[in-house]
Amino acid sequence: MPRQNYNNISINRRKFIAQITTAAGSAVALASPLGGFAAGFIPMQEWGTVGAVGAVGAVDTGVTVGQIMDMFIKEAPGAPFPNTVDTLKSGSRDVVVTGIVTTMFATVEVIRKAIALNANFIIAHEPTFYNHTDETGWLEKDDVYRYKADLLKKHNIVVWRNHDYIHGVRPDGVRKGLVDQLGWQQYEDSSHVIYNLATPMTLKALIGDLKQKLNIEAVRYVGDPEQQCKKVLLLPGAYGGKNQIQSISNTQPDVLVCGEISEWETAEYVRDARSAGKQLSLIVLGHIVSEEPGSEFMAKWLQTKFPSIKTTHIPTGSSLSFL
Amino acid sequence: MPRQNYNNISINRRKFIAQITTAAGSAVALASPLGGFAAGFIPMQEWGTVGAVGAVGAVDTGVTVGQIMDMFIKEAPGAPFPNTVDTLKSGSRDVVVTGIVTTMFATVEVIRKAIALNANFIIAHEPTFYNHTDETGWLEKDDVYRYKADLLKKHNIVVWRNHDYIHGVRPDGVRKGLVDQLGWQQYEDSSHVIYNLATPMTLKALIGDLKQKLNIEAVRYVGDPEQQCKKVLLLPGAYGGKNQIQSISNTQPDVLVCGEISEWETAEYVRDARSAGKQLSLIVLGHIVSEEPGSEFMAKWLQTKFPSIKTTHIPTGSSLSFL
Repeated sequence: MPRQNYNNISINRRKFIAQITTAAGSAVALASPLGGFAAGFIPMQEWGTVGAVGAVGAVDTGVTVGQIMDMFIKEAPGAPFPNTVDTLKSGSRDVVVTGIVTTMFATVEVIRKAIALNANFIIAHEPTFYNHTDETGWLEKDDVYRYKADLLKKHNIVVWRNHDYIHGVRPDGVRKGLVDQLGWQQYEDSSHVIYNLATPMTLKALIGDLKQKLNIEAVRYVGDPEQQCKKVLLLPGAYGGKNQIQSISNTQPDVLVCGEISEWETAEYVRDARSAGKQLSLIVLGHIVSEEPGSEFMAKWLQTKFPSIKTTHIPTGSSLSFL
Repeated sequence: MPRQNYNNISINRRKFIAQITTAAGSAVALASPLGGFAAGFIPMQEWGTVGAVGAVGAVDTGVTVGQIMDMFIKEAPGAPFPNTVDTLKSGSRDVVVTGIVTTMFATVEVIRKAIALNANFIIAHEPTFYNHTDETGWLEKDDVYRYKADLLKKHNIVVWRNHDYIHGVRPDGVRKGLVDQLGWQQYEDSSHVIYNLATPMTLKALIGDLKQKLNIEAVRYVGDPEQQCKKVLLLPGAYGGKNQIQSISNTQPDVLVCGEISEWETAEYVRDARSAGKQLSLIVLGHIVSEEPGSEFMAKWLQTKFPSIKTTHIPTGSSLSFL
């Protein structure tokens, strides 16, 4: 398959997600009965100490957020992208960076760790405020949003989302991070999405291998655990049902390994394919674990380009457990 | 909270999902390299026998698909809805019904069971062709789609999606089915989404109770297994991240029990809420198991209104297993 097709998929994926969120954003916001914050919140002061320690240890690197962003962005062919979610979610380009944290999500916990590390710049792969374009109008009265926004503001933390650009560099930084962690470099074919394993593995063994290498508690799957898998279609993140299904149709793999699905799309397609007699399985790793290696890739890039700035990759870890 | 708000949520949910799918549909279809069906398919003839047995035993009830649809639709306030996904996915309104199957998904397996039961009318809650509006143009060259469409056509099976209307009747038929199965009728408050349990349960015990009552292999969750849960926000299906989060914000429950999420939305919100000190957990049941009782509700309705027609509820069962 020509590489061009997969560039299209990558672009379509961005459009797809942006459109989803535009659609979601058009839903009418409900009036919130909350007059203020709910009881039970950890007072912000509790984090003042950690923040203060960070402030005392501040290092003036002289490098601004904008300089770092620009240097990464220019590595992506076709950059800057006209419509991108890769905007600042808090703070400004002019802030001088004291330290950097790369991560999948700028969670409250990651923000606290950044503060403790005296890192005032978080580069996150995914949204900060629970929707793809980080619209916040609908969250203005929400106590969780307010807590997080105030925490960022109080400690002058800058958050930049690096999603479209890290997928846009060649090779895709997230894929490279993941494939490096899996040790699958030599299996990649010219489509850059198919990995032909050296020896076939049962689905069960493949799941075990992925869980061990990516430190995953459990996965969801469709298929016969004893099915032999050699040709793997690897699509980290939430690629979109249509793109996942079209990629299966185009590449005819033994198994799709992906980050996230909508249950009524890819899972049902794979179930029907199996009922129709095809040898096809699905492994849903979880969105975060499938793309976290991209933040490791980003940390390495920063350490190379800005060796004087302390950069730390803080794995967000999966939000979801299994029981 | 006034009921009106939740009617809005219900309507917004439909809009939300319809808009998502319109967006998905706008992605450019990739050219498929497939010239025909892939090897390994079960020949259609294998199912000819079962279909033939069904045909021999055909019962002329005199009732058409359209008559059954119309009788259900008129029960929903505001019906008929101008924009709905509740259309026929195969066959026509004029077909005389020999038997009915209700289910979550008209999977290949469910279609085969319907054929074996001599039921030529499947009423499914979710899409047949792997996307919300059941667009099929992008699937024309796909072998799995072709297999399923041909199976339906060969055996003259009519599929009607009953999604918006079963959610539109009062009470919501899916919710009623689920709440009946859980035995939670007496816990429902006037919002119709909050259930105040008689006695608080730990999150772990609540998960165990849900798994047992709904026959679930495993769930995904966010929270402390020992957290006490009394006020439960119950949102079956894929309610949309924004709607789930706004419902949490509006009702301040101990736990949200839902069918499906996007990981970057509700799961991250709940994680941050917990980090901020709130007592809030999340249980993700799985989309199918959370709404399958709605198909049981539908079967009961049909058995009451059309007692002369054999109606069978065939649980689709979850497509996804855990390992």
